[in-house]
Amino acid sequence: MAVKVLLNEDEIPRQWYNLAADLPSPLQPPLGPDGKPIGPEDLAPVFPMNLIEQEVSRERWIDIPEEILEILYRWRPSPLRRAVYLEKALNTPARIYYKDEGVSPPGSHKPNTAVAQAWYNKQFGIERITTETGAGQWGSALAFACAILGLKCKVYMVRISFDQKPFRKLMMNVWGAECVASPSMNTQAGRDVLAKHPDTPGSLGIAISEAIEDAVSDRSGKTRYSLGSVLNHVMLHQTIIGLEAKKQLAKIGEKKVDVVIGCAGGGSNFAGLAFPFVADKINGARIEIIPVEPSSCPTLTRAPFTYDHGDVAKMTPLLAMHTLGHEFVSPPIHAGGLRYHGMSPLVSQAVVEGLLTPRSMDQLHCYESALFWARTEGYIPAPETSHAIAAVIEEAKKAREEGKEKVILFNWSGHGLMDLSGYANYMEGKLVDYPLPEEELQESLRSLEGLPKAPIVKTGRW
Amino acid sequence: MAVKVLLNEDEIPRQWYNLAADLPSPLQPPLGPDGKPIGPEDLAPVFPMNLIEQEVSRERWIDIPEEILEILYRWRPSPLRRAVYLEKALNTPARIYYKDEGVSPPGSHKPNTAVAQAWYNKQFGIERITTETGAGQWGSALAFACAILGLKCKVYMVRISFDQKPFRKLMMNVWGAECVASPSMNTQAGRDVLAKHPDTPGSLGIAISEAIEDAVSDRSGKTRYSLGSVLNHVMLHQTIIGLEAKKQLAKIGEKKVDVVIGCAGGGSNFAGLAFPFVADKINGARIEIIPVEPSSCPTLTRAPFTYDHGDVAKMTPLLAMHTLGHEFVSPPIHAGGLRYHGMSPLVSQAVVEGLLTPRSMDQLHCYESALFWARTEGYIPAPETSHAIAAVIEEAKKAREEGKEKVILFNWSGHGLMDLSGYANYMEGKLVDYPLPEEELQESLRSLEGLPKAPIVKTGRW
Repeated sequence: MAVKVLLNEDEIPRQWYNLAADLPSPLQPPLGPDGKPIGPEDLAPVFPMNLIEQEVSRERWIDIPEEILEILYRWRPSPLRRAVYLEKALNTPARIYYKDEGVSPPGSHKPNTAVAQAWYNKQFGIERITTETGAGQWGSALAFACAILGLKCKVYMVRISFDQKPFRKLMMNVWGAECVASPSMNTQAGRDVLAKHPDTPGSLGIAISEAIEDAVSDRSGKTRYSLGSVLNHVMLHQTIIGLEAKKQLAKIGEKKVDVVIGCAGGGSNFAGLAFPFVADKINGARIEIIPVEPSSCPTLTRAPFTYDHGDVAKMTPLLAMHTLGHEFVSPPIHAGGLRYHGMSPLVSQAVVEGLLTPRSMDQLHCYESALFWARTEGYIPAPETSHAIAAVIEEAKKAREEGKEKVILFNWSGHGLMDLSGYANYMEGKLVDYPLPEEELQESLRSLEGLPKAPIVKTGRW
Repeated sequence: MAVKVLLNEDEIPRQWYNLAADLPSPLQPPLGPDGKPIGPEDLAPVFPMNLIEQEVSRERWIDIPEEILEILYRWRPSPLRRAVYLEKALNTPARIYYKDEGVSPPGSHKPNTAVAQAWYNKQFGIERITTETGAGQWGSALAFACAILGLKCKVYMVRISFDQKPFRKLMMNVWGAECVASPSMNTQAGRDVLAKHPDTPGSLGIAISEAIEDAVSDRSGKTRYSLGSVLNHVMLHQTIIGLEAKKQLAKIGEKKVDVVIGCAGGGSNFAGLAFPFVADKINGARIEIIPVEPSSCPTLTRAPFTYDHGDVAKMTPLLAMHTLGHEFVSPPIHAGGLRYHGMSPLVSQAVVEGLLTPRSMDQLHCYESALFWARTEGYIPAPETSHAIAAVIEEAKKAREEGKEKVILFNWSGHGLMDLSGYANYMEGKLVDYPLPEEELQESLRSLEGLPKAPIVKTGRW
């Protein structure tokens, strides 16, 4: 029985899929500080214009430049694997498939967009890119892409992850990038936070502020900022994952997917796998599509859909999204990539429309699932990926109870080889859960007061 | 341009290749403590009989059981990659290909034999396996294989690596194995060493003694020992690498390989890639085949071919091999997998015959080569693999000087994601080389005094 389905390089998808073209209700525009919609030119100090064009595009299909494909060929098309041993261990009639994004050099899905963004920046004449990173998967992916393309790279890494995952910083250094703990003394945004909260574990919101400030304050005009998730063009670049998966499932004669699952922090690995299937759902297919988030950072399951800033210093435009409030600081769960206060506007709007059914998971349950996976399937998942796995196991058990031969597809967003200290803490009984008390949630949502409300537009079809 | 060549599962080689069938001069038999050749029954307390039969087999082709293939399918056939960016950076006319053994769950070539050995042990009714490990690649591979097959596993890990690479131990724990630093207080062999040298960094020779003692002293008869390199059956299981490479090169029309390179500690990843090409060389092909070892542990380049024990406590039979003497303790280079005093008898005999041209490399030069590789090709190599890369870069430059379109093939034995502290030390200028002074070599060779000499048999054809 085939346990993996491969595609050759000439079978790679040659266009990205843009969900914005097909959403039943239109995406809400980003707003400036004055509450008015902003235009491409307002984003020009932060991003190169070619990426801004992708950000606002409503074209359904966007060509992938040949030179980007040539870099992606190093690890793409990625394998579609079947979890036959997990199926046996669970005695489930479900067939479980997953896209293995851990095969990229930095070990996650992140380089799919890092390579694209670095390439477009270089095309635009940019020589240096700044960014933030949580768990370090994004920072190392951008460092890798910049090394390959000959660009300078500076990464502001959330302090708690910087301390928990020192090897991620070393990966960035191996690829020639500079990496500092955020908040840092390198920026005004960082200094402001440190003055108030010298012991802060940091947050993605703070690190984003620092990276943007660094980029826009370079007077040469040769530095831009890059974001690893949330924005439309990032979701776009990741859709190659789901498009490949469709070709691979077709290749082995799987005609119908019943459940699609991905963990969701800012939304990019989830969207990458799921959006091509969301398109099918919009066109009438019956598919359950589940973004899985930590119960300690329940953006999609408990937070409102409204306008909010992407960062703590309010340097980003206001985005219409599910948000816990831009001042939210997540508890120190090991899934650093899922600790963001907001969520991709595209993913958020799809949730509002009822196209997605979000689910939240406790940390300990995720580690239990990850360990069960590693001892049956072999590969060790990242803590973020373990959230998807926990939901997969739930769905596989449900299929067993229902006696249904379901096809479950999920995104293996990355391997956990850089995250073994989290496993050690779990095995030693040192980890705890951080359910978010209602009063803390309400407190955090106060940072939304005074910001414009996003209209809840639902076509009522799902 | 294709940068990787994939095979489907149904294209996997279904037999292992046994070089012992084709060596021009016969392999010298292992000897017992009395200096007389030992038979299979003498090995029965240590290994299961089905593996002993493979160890002494002179059959050219040995079928791979279907159930082993089904486990290998998780990551095999492994990709054959082309290093196009390195070629460009070096401006070489050479085409550089490598087998990526880093795609296995533990990240190296080791599970090729770990899965096979665990499977044969289970077939023989064994329930628990003991082993030693240097850098931890072997220990984690056996832990993985035992997890998949439901066997217990105990690993004695050389203390210096145990301290340098704590994440390798955690990997073993994730897969449910027990891992202790060697020398340990768990065995008489370990206690003896600790009594004499309480601060010893340990060695593979010591750890082997402990693992064998543990296995043979289990009175239930359900424990056996497993070795990750050196022995004939280990080389055999690894030949799937070179057999796949041949199919992949044929698939893209590469008819002739000029240079084959692999790093060599005990010899297994080198043999795995090289032996099918050694067969071609025996049959008249012109190929340069280069095992690369650390200059601090120059087994093939400076040590004699003679009979020696595989371990410090002399628990193994005497093997005819290149050896620095069983009391040799290697300096603490980061390539822990290359710190063994001996070498596979098959590899050693091929060197004696002149079929191989060994080369040694300094640690700093290897790290320099690894960093150059990571910043051009993207993937980060293990410190062991960096020895092969250093030789590849030398050969690629030579091809440029000679203006020759050579085909260079090497074995990417594993990724370096668990070894980033070595990179950090290198980038911070903290590493040094450890050339082995002649007087220290001679001192180490004294442990060979009184042991039988192995006859140097050379047919004179190479």
